[in-house]
Amino acid sequence: MCELLRINTDRGVMIHDGQSRFSKNGQPIHHFLGTSTFSEYTVVHAGCVAKINPAAPLDKVCVLSCGICTGFGATVNVAKPKPGSSVAIFGLGAVGLAAAEGARVSGASRIIGVDLVSARFEEAKKFGVNEFVNPKDHDKPVQQVIAEMTNGGVDRAVECTGSIQAMVSAFECVHDGWGLAVLVGVPSKDDAFKTAPINFLNERTLKGTFYGNYKPRTDLPSVVEKYMSGELEVDKFITHTVPFSEINKAFDLMLKGQSIRCIIRMQE
Amino acid sequence: MCELLRINTDRGVMIHDGQSRFSKNGQPIHHFLGTSTFSEYTVVHAGCVAKINPAAPLDKVCVLSCGICTGFGATVNVAKPKPGSSVAIFGLGAVGLAAAEGARVSGASRIIGVDLVSARFEEAKKFGVNEFVNPKDHDKPVQQVIAEMTNGGVDRAVECTGSIQAMVSAFECVHDGWGLAVLVGVPSKDDAFKTAPINFLNERTLKGTFYGNYKPRTDLPSVVEKYMSGELEVDKFITHTVPFSEINKAFDLMLKGQSIRCIIRMQE
Repeated sequence: MCELLRINTDRGVMIHDGQSRFSKNGQPIHHFLGTSTFSEYTVVHAGCVAKINPAAPLDKVCVLSCGICTGFGATVNVAKPKPGSSVAIFGLGAVGLAAAEGARVSGASRIIGVDLVSARFEEAKKFGVNEFVNPKDHDKPVQQVIAEMTNGGVDRAVECTGSIQAMVSAFECVHDGWGLAVLVGVPSKDDAFKTAPINFLNERTLKGTFYGNYKPRTDLPSVVEKYMSGELEVDKFITHTVPFSEINKAFDLMLKGQSIRCIIRMQE
Repeated sequence: MCELLRINTDRGVMIHDGQSRFSKNGQPIHHFLGTSTFSEYTVVHAGCVAKINPAAPLDKVCVLSCGICTGFGATVNVAKPKPGSSVAIFGLGAVGLAAAEGARVSGASRIIGVDLVSARFEEAKKFGVNEFVNPKDHDKPVQQVIAEMTNGGVDRAVECTGSIQAMVSAFECVHDGWGLAVLVGVPSKDDAFKTAPINFLNERTLKGTFYGNYKPRTDLPSVVEKYMSGELEVDKFITHTVPFSEINKAFDLMLKGQSIRCIIRMQE
């Protein structure tokens, strides 16, 4: 959680001199999140550069960015499910599928996907999800449905939606005594997490994570190695390949949700 | 978290046959919390009996009950502060002092006591508390005061009040990235824990505990050994010794708060 280099959507300039390195027709263009990778060349702070395996195919490992690392790391670095354990994943978008992939790689035996769109379940099976709950299909709260499915609650829950209701449900669906819930989604800044404190008294744990607790500069190379060894399967996250000149088509695809996942690789 | 034997204030009878073993003038008297130790003789479930060191003085180790074990265990078993770290203790009653004692035994270097009664600080020094904050002395929220004292937040916070506001403050006063808050107090069942979810996103952890995560039957003997070895100082928790026939005087002392702590040992 480096104060200097942590994600800052407001800065838009280099730290050293407070200036931008981009311009068009003499007008400065701001940097974005310290990397500005939607350009052929970019200027970044040395602390934002990680050296990865030179044999790694850049058109694949480019997806090992915020979404995939956050979801995968939330499970393998923070939730740390034991082999044979049960994990509920809230939200089966790209981040949730990466979290499920982390549960699969960790050896969890029950991976319960929770999503308001039932059509996502079929695709999620590729990522290890083997049970599915759509909250809309039930009259009772989803946490209660999951508790009944699992004799009192899951061992781990990973919330990947950003919905405050899903955050509360994720915490309330873990088992007393050892249950741990991880909040991954980025909430609205006006949301308040509310739960009855008795849920803490019963020895549950609630953890947050940022970027799956990976430190980009030192840890990203090891995530690339997980891909190179076949442990982390990246290709299945890629649904479309779009040339950079059609970037707006890519955004359209994402916004229309034509893809189950929202990662679109750019190539030029 | 044994479902069968966990604390149940409603049961009041033996599990085996649903009957009480106490009576007065033919009227049954209910059991209390599975132990009913305010009597010369008692009948308890075998799972509620722990064999302790026979050399332990019963008039001292009797205070190793709910309050002390909960507070001490919350720090040593759940918060687990590292030597040299900073710990904030919310509430300097018996439980909070036991939590401070746990921080002292763990080698924490800054133990910040937070209480609305400044007079408690002097006594709390015996338990390792070496800095004090009274929220009433400040115009800003206590979590902000503590963050400013500690360059961004304490490493660990242990909340021992049962006040929902203290629970939120305890969580919000820990440092981003590695901070961990433990909720010990028993909340009102109508309370709701509310915090901005961004606090989780910044990699903080919130944990609950019940009885300091000690399992009474298997762990209580080891807590007695900590007393016997001098590591855990029990005598300083005892402020009054009252004969059993004056039990109501003991309750009066507790309720009037004449003692900083609320543990009163009974002897007959």
